[in-house]
Order: sequence, then structure tokens, then C-alpha cells
Amino acid sequence: MSNHTYRITEIVGTSPDGVDAAIRSGISRVNQTLHGLDWFEVTNIRGYLKNGEISHFQVGLKVGFRLDDQPADGTV
Amino acid sequence: MSNHTYRITEIVGTSPDGVDAAIRSGISRVNQTLHGLDWFEVTNIRGYLKNGEISHFQVGLKVGFRLDDQPADGTV
Amino acid sequence: MSNHTYRITEIVGTSPDGVDAAIRSGISRVNQTLHGLDWFEVTNIRGYLKNGEISHFQVGLKVGFRLDDQPADGTV
Amino acid sequence: MSNHTYRITEIVGTSPDGVDAAIRSGISRVNQTLHGLDWFEVTNIRGYLKNGEISHFQVGLKVGFRLDDQPADGTV
Amino acid sequence: MSNHTYRITEIVGTSPDGVDAAIRSGISRVNQTLHGLDWFEVTNIRGYLKNGEISHFQVGLKVGFRLDDQPADGTV
Amino acid sequence: MSNHTYRITEIVGTSPDGVDAAIRSGISRVNQTLHGLDWFEVTNIRGYLKNGEISHFQVGLKVGFRLDDQPADGTV
Amino acid sequence: MSNHTYRITEIVGTSPDGVDAAIRSGISRVNQTLHGLDWFEVTNIRGYLKNGEISHFQVGLKVGFRLDDQPADGTV
Amino acid sequence: MSNHTYRITEIVGTSPDGVDAAIRSGISRVNQTLHGLDWFEVTNIRGYLKNGEISHFQVGLKVGFRLDDQPADGTV
Amino acid sequence: MSNHTYRITEIVGTSPDGVDAAIRSGISRVNQTLHGLDWFEVTNIRGYLKNGEISHFQVGLKVGFRLDDQPADGTV
Amino acid sequence: MSNHTYRITEIVGTSPDGVDAAIRSGISRVNQTLHGLDWFEVTNIRGYLKNGEISHFQVGLKVGFRLDDQPADGTV
Amino acid sequence: MSNHTYRITEIVGTSPDGVDAAIRSGISRVNQTLHGLDWFEVTNIRGYLKNGEISHFQVGLKVGFRLDDQPADGTV
Amino acid sequence: MSNHTYRITEIVGTSPDGVDAAIRSGISRVNQTLHGLDWFEVTNIRGYLKNGEISHFQVGLKVGFRLDDQPADGTV
Repeated sequence: MSNHTYRITEIVGTSPDGVDAAIRSGISRVNQTLHGLDWFEVTNIRGYLKNGEISHFQVGLKVGFRLDDQPADGTV
Repeated sequence: MSNHTYRITEIVGTSPDGVDAAIRSGISRVNQTLHGLDWFEVTNIRGYLKNGEISHFQVGLKVGFRLDDQPADGTV
Repeated sequence: MSNHTYRITEIVGTSPDGVDAAIRSGISRVNQTLHGLDWFEVTNIRGYLKNGEISHFQVGLKVGFRLDDQPADGTV
Repeated sequence: MSNHTYRITEIVGTSPDGVDAAIRSGISRVNQTLHGLDWFEVTNIRGYLKNGEISHFQVGLKVGFRLDDQPADGTV
Repeated sequence: MSNHTYRITEIVGTSPDGVDAAIRSGISRVNQTLHGLDWFEVTNIRGYLKNGEISHFQVGLKVGFRLDDQPADGTV
Repeated sequence: MSNHTYRITEIVGTSPDGVDAAIRSGISRVNQTLHGLDWFEVTNIRGYLKNGEISHFQVGLKVGFRLDDQPADGTV
Repeated sequence: MSNHTYRITEIVGTSPDGVDAAIRSGISRVNQTLHGLDWFEVTNIRGYLKNGEISHFQVGLKVGFRLDDQPADGTV
Repeated sequence: MSNHTYRITEIVGTSPDGVDAAIRSGISRVNQTLHGLDWFEVTNIRGYLKNGEISHFQVGLKVGFRLDDQPADGTV
Repeated sequence: MSNHTYRITEIVGTSPDGVDAAIRSGISRVNQTLHGLDWFEVTNIRGYLKNGEISHFQVGLKVGFRLDDQPADGTV
Repeated sequence: MSNHTYRITEIVGTSPDGVDAAIRSGISRVNQTLHGLDWFEVTNIRGYLKNGEISHFQVGLKVGFRLDDQPADGTV
Repeated sequence: MSNHTYRITEIVGTSPDGVDAAIRSGISRVNQTLHGLDWFEVTNIRGYLKNGEISHFQVGLKVGFRLDDQPADGTV
Repeated sequence: MSNHTYRITEIVGTSPDGVDAAIRSGISRVNQTLHGLDWFEVTNIRGYLKNGEISHFQVGLKVGFRLDDQPADGTV
């Protein structure tokens, strides 16, 4: 069967700078070990507070990537 | 009956720069054809990835605008 | 293909009098520009407060109507 | 601003034959009046029963399409 | 019983500048009257539109803070 | 920072008379101790039954109010 | 084991008059065949439209009632 | 009170053949003991896997039927 | 058609002792009148408070059971 | 207006021992500063892990309590 | 501890032919690299449109499989 | 980029003894193959029934763990 299949991995990206930066940080880290990244979806936006200020933003992400048609990497 | 009625249109604004920029881009485009824009609500935040980086952010938006009391524009 | 298709438009009806009145007001306004109205569904009930009292109820509605089999009105 | 914006219209496709057929029927009808259709998402699956059998399937769909960069058609 | 208990207060932070700024503004205001702030979670992102532009972003936030083990401040 | 911040308090208004009356009753009670009430949102509609009849309607409400820019009342 | 158990039945009450009337109508009908009714919860509010007006409101209800400690009526 | 009331029963239809077949199978079984079936709504789609293949599809369904105005069958 | 069909009944089990005990109590009561019980799913966890302590836990449960292929018990 | 109004406060109870203990711990703490506690509802169940074991359970709770008819305590 | 543990992986199966085919295609691909597949659950149904027709259906799936009691494959 | 990233894996822990035991069993199994476990969140509580009694509780869990800053283990 030659239809593509995609897998979704769920991560939390973090940054002291804001929502966009936390998303970019998480995607950057996932890209170090997975290839074929295709899309992401934000699942929630949270943050950790310290001394009354935002220490870091925590953005939940589902990241989709295309599986190779012939599995060779055990990544499912 | 003289109470106001509002209509909600659903769009997806996009930008390579981030969440705020995608929201502003979508609102800007809607404002070219609809008047009386009143509020928006983010329904989801997604993005398209290319070569391991964020190609563009895609922000789903519901945009509310006030309908004229006497319909003359067929916009419902 | 001759199966019917329905379209759903989303509005907010308002009234100072209550939930039922806000629903009726919104449906009445939609009926001025769309024909073939078939059903509605309440999506949320909110209201605006002024001087500690309810100024008006705001009822979110999805309104479904049947599309003509042969499009002549550009209403999709 | 040159980023693309997409609009989402919500419909209900119907068919006596099943879920896939109801989706195809609804998409086919929308395609008669809108161009640039890009994606759909199923929002719910319902059906009408008559004499103890399924008279027709009713599949709720959100359909996304790309707006022209220069509005000329009033379709927002 | 010596286990910690946390309380969650719900606010809406606003800013004309964007989502991050609205979050920071709301947290800053809460920090004026509550101590022990520990985390926040975004519940929704909305905004008010005026003359076709975004007047201000409105970000709903749940903010968690640790209650003193011996209540002395009536803040529950 | 001069952006407004709003707080949301959650209550349940009740009445033997119906949904609208339960909403008005709850808002009326909140208005006795809080100023600056701005909006409400219905979170759920329930009721208590006794002898097969509705004893009272119970309407969950989130009520939003504007916090003073300079906190003097400890109401967060 | 002598703890009480409750059962929940799901119905749709209808009325041309409004939300409260549809709730009362549905509860009244359930009360003809079940005893020990204890509470209800609204699950959704819909309505059927005819000639541009509301033909009847349809209110989805979950109705809870206490089961007899010794089953004699087969109503679970 | 002469308004109609509907009851909703929740079932899971199954089939090795697919989603449509599982829906039809469940409706067919319900029709053996209940009359006046009016509509259904899919609540979830699951399936059981055996030896790496789909053994059967399991489709959750809410099925609505009209109650007789004069209860004679104890079906609430 | 020989595919199995399951029915889901919704109950609330209660116990002063905790969540597990409330689940077991509710299942035990349902088992007195229904056979073929197959699975349960927790829908919500609530409780009633009296004099500042938990009087009893209330755990909402959906309980699934297999219908006989030939209906003889009118339990749908 | 003499109908009762209830307020809902949201907390997180914690315990190293389990879900029931975390609920009881949180209710016990709230009872130190609020009277008239009436019910609770679990909103989520989480936990913190340390060295591969559960350090403490964290149970989100909405706790409802009856407001005095004549406000004297500023607790809304 | 000898209780079984299951892991859930999330994928998107695709097919030009319909919902059932997209589910079967995704399950087939997962079965190439994972053993002990036990169940699946559909999380969403979407599709990509091209030239006004459905290019392929995209069905989101959570797939559950039993982990070996003694981990030897690093698949958690 | 030196911000931490977390990954979330989804499992189902089981036990004949109750909810807490099922959570502990699942966490214990995950800890055999993953290090850096940080938090968990319950996604659903279900159970399998046999002969009218609870055979085992099944608790869905999302488990978060911190990814190493320099990937060396292919665990994303």
C-alpha cells in the first residue's frame, strides 16, 4: 500500500522570551533527531512564575512528520 | 425588532513571523471586504514546517462584526 | 448528485429581555436575507453588564439552511 | 501584506449511501460556487432514521479555501 | 495535614501589543496583590477590533499560587 | 503598566422561575460586593427536582469585572 | 453495600414557547414513568425553524434519579 | 402537555467491514426492540486489532426516538 | 446480522470512602439487574461536602454491556 | 431577592499518597478559611515525578460554597 | 509488578478512497514496525482538496499496543 | 538554543486494585526505559468488567520527561 502515513509526537517547547520563541525552540530540538517534519499544532500555553515574573513560557505542541514508506529507522 | 445582531466569519491568518503577525494579517485581509468588525477569538494555532523550520504560522480566527439593522449588502 | 446540502452560518443574537428573546431576535434578522432556514443550535450564552445589571443577553447561534440544488445566489 | 488568508465555510453534506458519500456530495456542491478549495474537516456525523432504517447520513464539514489576495468577489 | 494547597484565580490580561504582552500585563497586575505566584495557563485568546484594526488583545489566564500553610490572609 | 486587567469569578445563580431569573439572581448577588462588573458567560444549566417537578434552576456563571489600576481592595 | 446509586437518562424536551418551557415539558413526561427524579443538566439547546420562525425549541437533558436499593423494577 | 419528548439511548455498533457497516449493524439491532427511531449521532469511532489487522470497527452511537405521548411501554 | 451490539447505561456510584469505592459500589448495583457487563468509563468525579468534610464521593460512570443477539429482555 | 447564590473557588490539593488523599487535603485547607462548603468537582488529575517515582499527586478541584444572603465577609 | 502496560502512538493514515481505507492504510504501516497492536481510536477526520475534489482523506488515529513486561526494545 | 524541551509519551497503566495502583504501575513500567520523568496527567479512567466485577482498572496517562540537550538516545 503506497499511501503516506504520518506520525505525531507531542512535546513542550520552552523559552523565557514568549510564545513564538517557545514554539521555535521546541521545533528546533525535535529537528535534531527526526526528519520529514511537516506541521505542528499548539495544544496548550502555560508558564512558570518566579518572584512574580514569568520565568519561562511552556508551549505544548503536536508535531507531525512523514514516515518513510519502507521503515528503516524504527521511529514509529 | 431593533436589537443588534452580529455575524461570525471563520478565517485562518498566516505569517512567517509569529502568532501576533498571523492574527494581524488575517484581520487586515477581512477588513478589506467587511465593515463593522467588532472582535476576534483564536480557535487554534498551527504551522507548516519545511526543512525543519517554521515556514508559516497558521492561526484560526473567528471574527465577529455587526450586521446593519436594514440589510442592504447580502453579507449574512 | 442530487443529495441536499446545508450551510451553517454563525451569528450572535442580542436582547435586553432574556435568552429566548435573544434567540428570536437573531433568527428574525437572519431571515431577512436568507431563505430555507432549517434549524439552529446555541453555541454559548453570554451577556454585557452595566451598572451592575444585565444590559443585554448575547446568544451565539449556528443557523442551518438548505442550499438550492442549482446555485443561483452565491450564498455558499 | 502579502500573506495568504483562508476562509472556512461550514456545511452539512448528505447521502443515503454512507459517510464517504455524504462528504463527497457536500464538497461537490460547495465546489459549484467557490474556487480555491483547500481542505475539509469533519465536525460531526449524524443521520436521519425512517422506518427503522438510515434514510440519509448527515456529515458536518468545515471547508477551507484560499481568499484572493485582491478581493474582487465579496466572498469573505 | 502538611501538604501544600494551591489556589487558582482567573483573569484577563490585555495589551495593544500582542499575546505575550497581554500575558505579562495580567501577571504583573496580579502580582501587586498576591504572593507565591507559581504558574499560569492560557484559557483563551481574544481581541477587540476598532476601525478594522486590533485595539487590544485579551488573553484569559488561570494563575496558580501557593496558599500559606497557616491561613492569615483570607485569600482563599 | 497601564493596560486594564479583568478578574473572573465563578458563581451559581438559582431561581425556581427559569434560566433568565437564575442568571439575574446571581448577578444581583455578586453586585452587592463587587463593583465594575463587565460581562458574564453561562458555563452550565442544571436544576434540582423534587416530587417530579423543578424545585430550582441552577445556572453556572463566570462573571468578569475590571480591577482597579491601583489595587486598594484586595479583591484579586 | 448500602450506598445509593443514581441512574441518568437522556431526553430531549420540546416546546414552541422557549427554553424553560421545553425543559419543563421534558421533565413532566419523564415523571410519568420514573420516580425518584433528583436533578437535570442541559446538554444542548437547539430548535427547528419553519417559514423563518422558530417552530419549536429542543433542549437536550440528562435527568438523574435514585435507584431503589433493592431492584424491583428493572429500570437500570 | 402535548409537546413531544424524545429519548436518547447510547449503543456501540460493530462490524469487521467498516464505519458505515458498524453504524447500520447497531441501528438494525436497536430497531428490534424500540419503535419510533428518529436520528443518530456518532460519538466515537474505535476498533479492535488482532494480528496487526482490524478485527472489528466499534462505532459509538446516540440514537434518538420519540416517546409515546401516553406512556404504556415503560421505555423511558 | 450477527455482529454484536453493546448498550451503554450511565450511572452515578457513591461512597464515603473514596473514588475506587464509589466506582465499585455503582458497578455492584448495576450488576443486580443487568448481565453481560463489559466495561466502564469514568465521566466525572464530584462529591458532597457537609460540615467541611467529604460526606460522599459521586463518580459518574458509563457502563457498557453486550446485548443478546436475539432480544428477549427489552433492555435496549 | 431571596434565592441562594453559590460561589466556586478553584484549588489544587496535593498528597504523596494518592487521588483521594489529595482531594481530602485540599478540602481540609479550604475549610480553614471558608464556611458553607457544599460540593466539589475534580477538574484534572496530575502528578509530579522524581527519581522515577510519584513525588505527589496534584488534583484540581472546583469547590462550591453558599454565599450568605447578606454579604458581611467580602468573600465573593 | 506484573500488570500490563499499554503505549499509545498517534498517527495519520491517508487514502484517496475514503475513511475506512485511510484507517486500514495507517494501521498497516504501523504494523510494519510495532507488534502487539491492540486497539485504535479515531481522533479526527480531515482531507486535502485539489481542483475541487478530494485528493486524499486524512484520518487521525491513536493506536494502542501492549508493552513487553521485560523491556528489550526501547519502544516506550 | 539552550532552552529545555520536554517530550510527552502516552500510556495506559492497569491494576485490579484501583486508580492509584494503575497510575503507579504505568509510571513504574515507563521508568524502566526512560529517564528524566518529570510529570504525568490522567487523560481518562476506564475499566474492564468480568462476571459483574472489576477485572482491572485502566488509567490513561500522559507522561512528560526532559529531553537531553544533546540528543544521543534517539528518544524523541
